[in-house]
Amino acid sequence: MAKIVILGGSFGGITSAFELKRLLGGKADITLLCDMDKFVFIPSLPWISFGWRRPEDITLSLDSILRPKGIKFIHEEAVGVDADSSKVMTKTQEIHYDYLVIATGPALAFSAVPGLGPEGGHTECIFTLDQAIRTKKAWDRFLENPGPIVVGSVQGVSCFGPVYEYACELDTELRRKKIRHKVPITFVTSEPYIGHFGIGGLKYSRRMMEDEFASRDINVIANQAVEEFTPDEVKLKDETKLPFKLAMFAPPMAGVKAVFHLGNPKGFIPVDSNYRHKDYKNIFSVGVAMAIPPNDTPIPTGVPKTGYMTEEMAKYAALSIAAEIEGRPPVKTEPVGAICIMDMGNTAALMKARPVLPPRQEAVMKSSIAFKWMKQGFEKYYLWKIKRGLTQLP
Amino acid sequence: MAKIVILGGSFGGITSAFELKRLLGGKADITLLCDMDKFVFIPSLPWISFGWRRPEDITLSLDSILRPKGIKFIHEEAVGVDADSSKVMTKTQEIHYDYLVIATGPALAFSAVPGLGPEGGHTECIFTLDQAIRTKKAWDRFLENPGPIVVGSVQGVSCFGPVYEYACELDTELRRKKIRHKVPITFVTSEPYIGHFGIGGLKYSRRMMEDEFASRDINVIANQAVEEFTPDEVKLKDETKLPFKLAMFAPPMAGVKAVFHLGNPKGFIPVDSNYRHKDYKNIFSVGVAMAIPPNDTPIPTGVPKTGYMTEEMAKYAALSIAAEIEGRPPVKTEPVGAICIMDMGNTAALMKARPVLPPRQEAVMKSSIAFKWMKQGFEKYYLWKIKRGLTQLP
Amino acid sequence: MAKIVILGGSFGGITSAFELKRLLGGKADITLLCDMDKFVFIPSLPWISFGWRRPEDITLSLDSILRPKGIKFIHEEAVGVDADSSKVMTKTQEIHYDYLVIATGPALAFSAVPGLGPEGGHTECIFTLDQAIRTKKAWDRFLENPGPIVVGSVQGVSCFGPVYEYACELDTELRRKKIRHKVPITFVTSEPYIGHFGIGGLKYSRRMMEDEFASRDINVIANQAVEEFTPDEVKLKDETKLPFKLAMFAPPMAGVKAVFHLGNPKGFIPVDSNYRHKDYKNIFSVGVAMAIPPNDTPIPTGVPKTGYMTEEMAKYAALSIAAEIEGRPPVKTEPVGAICIMDMGNTAALMKARPVLPPRQEAVMKSSIAFKWMKQGFEKYYLWKIKRGLTQLP
Repeated sequence: MAKIVILGGSFGGITSAFELKRLLGGKADITLLCDMDKFVFIPSLPWISFGWRRPEDITLSLDSILRPKGIKFIHEEAVGVDADSSKVMTKTQEIHYDYLVIATGPALAFSAVPGLGPEGGHTECIFTLDQAIRTKKAWDRFLENPGPIVVGSVQGVSCFGPVYEYACELDTELRRKKIRHKVPITFVTSEPYIGHFGIGGLKYSRRMMEDEFASRDINVIANQAVEEFTPDEVKLKDETKLPFKLAMFAPPMAGVKAVFHLGNPKGFIPVDSNYRHKDYKNIFSVGVAMAIPPNDTPIPTGVPKTGYMTEEMAKYAALSIAAEIEGRPPVKTEPVGAICIMDMGNTAALMKARPVLPPRQEAVMKSSIAFKWMKQGFEKYYLWKIKRGLTQLP
Repeated sequence: MAKIVILGGSFGGITSAFELKRLLGGKADITLLCDMDKFVFIPSLPWISFGWRRPEDITLSLDSILRPKGIKFIHEEAVGVDADSSKVMTKTQEIHYDYLVIATGPALAFSAVPGLGPEGGHTECIFTLDQAIRTKKAWDRFLENPGPIVVGSVQGVSCFGPVYEYACELDTELRRKKIRHKVPITFVTSEPYIGHFGIGGLKYSRRMMEDEFASRDINVIANQAVEEFTPDEVKLKDETKLPFKLAMFAPPMAGVKAVFHLGNPKGFIPVDSNYRHKDYKNIFSVGVAMAIPPNDTPIPTGVPKTGYMTEEMAKYAALSIAAEIEGRPPVKTEPVGAICIMDMGNTAALMKARPVLPPRQEAVMKSSIAFKWMKQGFEKYYLWKIKRGLTQLP
Repeated sequence: MAKIVILGGSFGGITSAFELKRLLGGKADITLLCDMDKFVFIPSLPWISFGWRRPEDITLSLDSILRPKGIKFIHEEAVGVDADSSKVMTKTQEIHYDYLVIATGPALAFSAVPGLGPEGGHTECIFTLDQAIRTKKAWDRFLENPGPIVVGSVQGVSCFGPVYEYACELDTELRRKKIRHKVPITFVTSEPYIGHFGIGGLKYSRRMMEDEFASRDINVIANQAVEEFTPDEVKLKDETKLPFKLAMFAPPMAGVKAVFHLGNPKGFIPVDSNYRHKDYKNIFSVGVAMAIPPNDTPIPTGVPKTGYMTEEMAKYAALSIAAEIEGRPPVKTEPVGAICIMDMGNTAALMKARPVLPPRQEAVMKSSIAFKWMKQGFEKYYLWKIKRGLTQLP
């Protein structure tokens, strides 16, 4: 029986696990390793940071959703992978695999800019549950003594969406609290223009976001890199200094330590169109852990890998592994597309791109309060679905 | 009984007078000085310049509206103020005050640019009734021999709204006369971009005005200063020369001579958040006469003080004076907001900003023919209200 | 009886012929010369190039539409005009005229850029029926092996509309074939910005086309000249190199050889406001053959002369000739306007400008699927009308 090990318990990991189980049933022995014991619905993290959600609203116990499906869960961090002898190492054991799926997500490279990040730096982040909880505390302190806020993405960032969400939610929440006029907001980004999103824009997203931010009195500094953060100031490469009472900045991403040596210079895993490692044929990688070439922008930016993209990749990887185990020819894949709803506080925008990068066969960019409701509904639906181990529409 | 003297008979002066009377009744002796014997509804002056209104449609006798309320009116120009001995001087008398409200509006600084202005210069203006009447005559002459028109705001201007109104009304009127194609219109402004309005833009006002002017075939030269005006040409700082048959330009503003020495280097009165003079505690100032720091734009521009803003200031000043006279603690003020309807000839735009400068808690920018009707209705309503000495909604 | 010779069998030629016949009846002997024996409804040529129309759908035999109206048709190319002795030369005969109407349309100046054009060059064109048929063949070959496409207008172009149509239709057709994502499209133009159209823009055409092209993932390079075309690459003046599998570029236009000596340095005929030659009083010229001063743009561009404009000119020229023949004073003309519907594949835009260049008394720019239907209907209606020799609404 083929032994499949999956690293990571977020979108890529659990989708791979459920899909492999669905496709292979008893033919495979599937083990999922994760250093966290909870699945976190990452898209809702910005809502945590404003107190619009509690952690328990958006988390599920990994063990309780995986065990009923016959998937083993090991709550341990992978500290290394020996690809030549097909072994994953944790602090306590070595686990052999016939197939390995790397779905670890990213390491956050806060060291990219001096003073960046919540650990030892001066900025908040909303990319992990702990960070979002911390940002909520910073927000509560901020409200006692409001002042300027700077929100942004430093050079090398690939995941821009949550930063836009945070900026718009911030504006919305400040208006609800009737203190918007006491809080100058500046949005700093490495994108060449706002609405680029790391994907070269989507329809008239540039115009739409320019109008949106102008409408919300959010100052924009685009196409800019950050020199450093001090406890109360952002220094940009062009010498501009922006004082702040609160700063939330996205960091660049890299591959995680345990698999870094299997990746490109940034530690992202190079894969073929079936999400199979280019050198190690029994290793697959999906989601943020795998490599997509960066954008060709004046200030470096990467291409985001959203939850939807990650799930598409995980399904292709599972299909490829199942095909090989069952002796069928490899599946034919299509470039993945992206669908997401960007929350904007008092409204939301539906974005659809297939493929993700231009030129696209299909593209949608629309904003409406209805998409806000849809996003709220999807959160509940997705958590309900995952609890039941479903990765397809029921 | 406290003796209160008010300088100025426009929005700030009469609102202060009525409010002080309403608050203090017989406890105060209120005198209003003005060099004009008429209240002029300034927002309608552009309509005078196209013959859409007659002077008698938009003026009221100051004496006839003030006397019935028990407010003294002196039709004399203040030629000086002795703040140390609390006296106002006219050519014929000295008037002692316990409290002075400076609501004189501006002196128009036509000397800022050679050839600017109707007196000795080569451009029309619509900031006073006399100027608007003169502009109507220039318009009638122009129609006999049409050609290029240049409309604009030189460096240092703070009051941009009427210039936008004039440009759009001009376009509308020329289309009605079926000669729009014979009249190239160029709009020159010291604003960094059109739709800035001296307040950093309002929502997507930039995009809106760019579309509006493109739609109307009005050429735009923004972020530009003027070198000089000759009888038939504007010379810009960048050497561009624009010939004209008619030119209407807004001048910068300064404090009026009688109170100049009480103000900042431009003669505007420095006040605290209660509109009280920073040094002379029994002097208050509201409206254009008081000082707001200029914008930080490449070409110098100031912040407009609209009629609505002036009235809010006048109410705060009256409340502060009344509180002091009655021995109550000073009132707590909020930064003033602005609501105005910008006429665009065949349509109009509603603008609402609170506070006036970004970031704002509240902002509205919408265009619709309905706002045109609303503006026309408001003019009648306001004149009716003032005639009755009302400053609050009846 | 006045002998009138007309050169050209397209909009200008047949409109002149029909109008002169309508106005003068038996008082004139009218002869139309054309090197083609067919009237081609030029606005539909882009549709030929995608196979949306067959040549027979949009052509009519010139002889069969002219003869019934008593207009002589000579299917011969004019090789010269002797204006001093009022004679047109073909290869086989000399034809004397009392009045000559030059409505030849343009010569296409493919020599303007090395490698430009279908004859000896590397780019397709859609300005003649033969070119459009050839472009259809190139399109069929392209579909077997898709790749990047470059569409554009080189320096000196005046007729931009069909290039916009081709770009949007291309995008539409590629989406229908579900291969849009395999075909990067770049739009290169000598216009200072897209939506200029050689007429300084029309209302918010700039914003509209920027949004439209962004929405369609069409890359834009505006305000740019072309250095040369190689078999698979466009080299721009700024050194940019754009590889292509298919390139469609508009060439500049000049006067045709037979009348070049009667024109300005580009061979366009200089006329007065009655479309009468400035030197030869019995020669008139309408449509592309006549001279309009070029635009003052950083990269040279000309002003388009559309079918509608050409017909307006032809009517004025016919009126002027008829008036002279009948001994009436010359007609008073107005600057011509333009109405056209720009096809955009899955939608279309109505454009109306009167006069053509700003400032305009009247301007419309709207997009809607309804205009697509209108354009399709107009094609049928126009061909039906011409078949009956009608130039006015029946």
